Amino acid sequence: MSNKIVAIIGGGVIGGGWAARFLLHGWHVKVYDPAADAQRKIEEVLANARASLPKLSDVSLPKEGQLTFCDNLEAAVADASWIQESVPERLDIKLATLAAIQAACSHTAIIGSSTSGFKPSELQQGAQRPAQIMVAHPFNPVYLLPLVELVPSEQTNTALLNQAKDLLTSIGMKPLHVRKEIDAHIADRLLEAVWREGLWLINDGVATTEEIDDAIRYGFGLRWAQMGLFETYRIAGGEAGMAHFIAQFGPCLHWPWSKLTDVPELTDQLVQTIADQSDAQSGQYSIRELERIRDNNLIGIMRAQKQNQWGVGELLNAHDKRLKELE
Amino acid sequence: MSNKIVAIIGGGVIGGGWAARFLLHGWHVKVYDPAADAQRKIEEVLANARASLPKLSDVSLPKEGQLTFCDNLEAAVADASWIQESVPERLDIKLATLAAIQAACSHTAIIGSSTSGFKPSELQQGAQRPAQIMVAHPFNPVYLLPLVELVPSEQTNTALLNQAKDLLTSIGMKPLHVRKEIDAHIADRLLEAVWREGLWLINDGVATTEEIDDAIRYGFGLRWAQMGLFETYRIAGGEAGMAHFIAQFGPCLHWPWSKLTDVPELTDQLVQTIADQSDAQSGQYSIRELERIRDNNLIGIMRAQKQNQWGVGELLNAHDKRLKELE
Repeated sequence: MSNKIVAIIGGGVIGGGWAARFLLHGWHVKVYDPAADAQRKIEEVLANARASLPKLSDVSLPKEGQLTFCDNLEAAVADASWIQESVPERLDIKLATLAAIQAACSHTAIIGSSTSGFKPSELQQGAQRPAQIMVAHPFNPVYLLPLVELVPSEQTNTALLNQAKDLLTSIGMKPLHVRKEIDAHIADRLLEAVWREGLWLINDGVATTEEIDDAIRYGFGLRWAQMGLFETYRIAGGEAGMAHFIAQFGPCLHWPWSKLTDVPELTDQLVQTIADQSDAQSGQYSIRELERIRDNNLIGIMRAQKQNQWGVGELLNAHDKRLKELE
Repeated sequence: MSNKIVAIIGGGVIGGGWAARFLLHGWHVKVYDPAADAQRKIEEVLANARASLPKLSDVSLPKEGQLTFCDNLEAAVADASWIQESVPERLDIKLATLAAIQAACSHTAIIGSSTSGFKPSELQQGAQRPAQIMVAHPFNPVYLLPLVELVPSEQTNTALLNQAKDLLTSIGMKPLHVRKEIDAHIADRLLEAVWREGLWLINDGVATTEEIDDAIRYGFGLRWAQMGLFETYRIAGGEAGMAHFIAQFGPCLHWPWSKLTDVPELTDQLVQTIADQSDAQSGQYSIRELERIRDNNLIGIMRAQKQNQWGVGELLNAHDKRLKELE
């Protein structure tokens, strides 16, 4: 199958986001969702996507594909070369849906699951053709955020996985091949850790939702929009290097700095692994160069919010006003 | 004291960043750091700051203050109305430094500590005038990131705390008053949780530093540059509301979605507290309005990186090229 027909099974916020991203990249989209308000919800997500996604691009997007709401799952999947399952996060529902999909779809179609938690091998239990199934976990809003965690199991067909990478790239996404299947993949494990600690902070009366959000968006959230955790620390480590930084940071791991206290042992080998991986990631840049890249990105990211009078943008505008008064 | 003289005690990356931010806002800066290369390091941070901070503003910054390197701590702090301590993160060193500062500084000066971990009450142990001391914890790069966690203890003078808030605001920062002192304050507790989970992912061979960074910066990192954790989930919860979202998300807390498994109990009361706090934070916006604000911010944040050919910007440019070829 290599036509541009995608079937969206489950049309909530995530399914709707997938539908919008494919549609605006010229794919024909067939939606199946038995909920009474599915069509309204998808149209709303689509309106958001039409108003925003084209602004990311300096060239025109392809002519929009055709959107069809189907009365049954079979009609939606029959001719599709990509089938994206976004039904509720319960394994029994997922398995029944995948079985129905495989009973009606092309044997060469890609079947992606939007699951945030299940491993592909769990989704393949009892499947007619497990090789067709993989996790393709996107992030809300799907029509704007590029990340898709693409997780195969040992049974997933590698050629199909590579085809999936190409297709996702062609609709502007960033497929991240998760090489080892694990509950909740990669990003949601990090999110879950923050979520748990955030709940403790509220539970213990240390901070409110707003204070926690501000602690993120005026600080490390700005860093993470352009470099992640390790790249940021690579720079913080400066000339002394990543291994030095980790060795220095190491002891805190055993301090009660979070309520989450199961901690990997920082063996020399683990420290070296991290330092090597960090070198492979950006050893081609000097720390000075990385600082300049970071600073230019931070300026762009913060300036972009001035126009919207939001968060750091609101702060910068108020500061401008104050500076002007002092002139 | 209300002159514009600040003493920077400890001139590493953090002290240097403070020096640069004050200096570029017209303050005279007196630095004391016994390290041989302190002056070179501060000059380097300052060069970065001069090349970037003015770009955040649409009006001119004040005339730069005067930078002085002092031979001893006493000379640096004598006339200062703000003294910022950024010495290494060891309590004995911090306490000795604070004692030396208090022996030589004005009784009405603000003494801020850049500590990322210690509580203000720990720093006040044995102090001559504990009321003068508070935590003022910034984020790297200090000359660009606005967040400062401002943490008083019960002994900290409230008028001085309020004065500190005003002064930080006047140099373009966002003081976040941490109302309850706690090890590592707020932001670093969240960072520590992610750091620990990230180390597990590397330790277990699930992901490399680069894969973890990509999972952040192509996905939730983009969200967190403008809204934090809870605001993002408020939107994800959609029309059903925050309490519904948490109740739905709740069960995952007990699934093995992270290696960090100490979990607060999601009582009805905690759920309601979170929902109420979220309403107080942004109940004035409808979910549709928040979606539009989020989308506009995401577009700005991602577009800002196109120019720098970095991360999501590189991806978007490659996608433009591909779209152009298809035209």
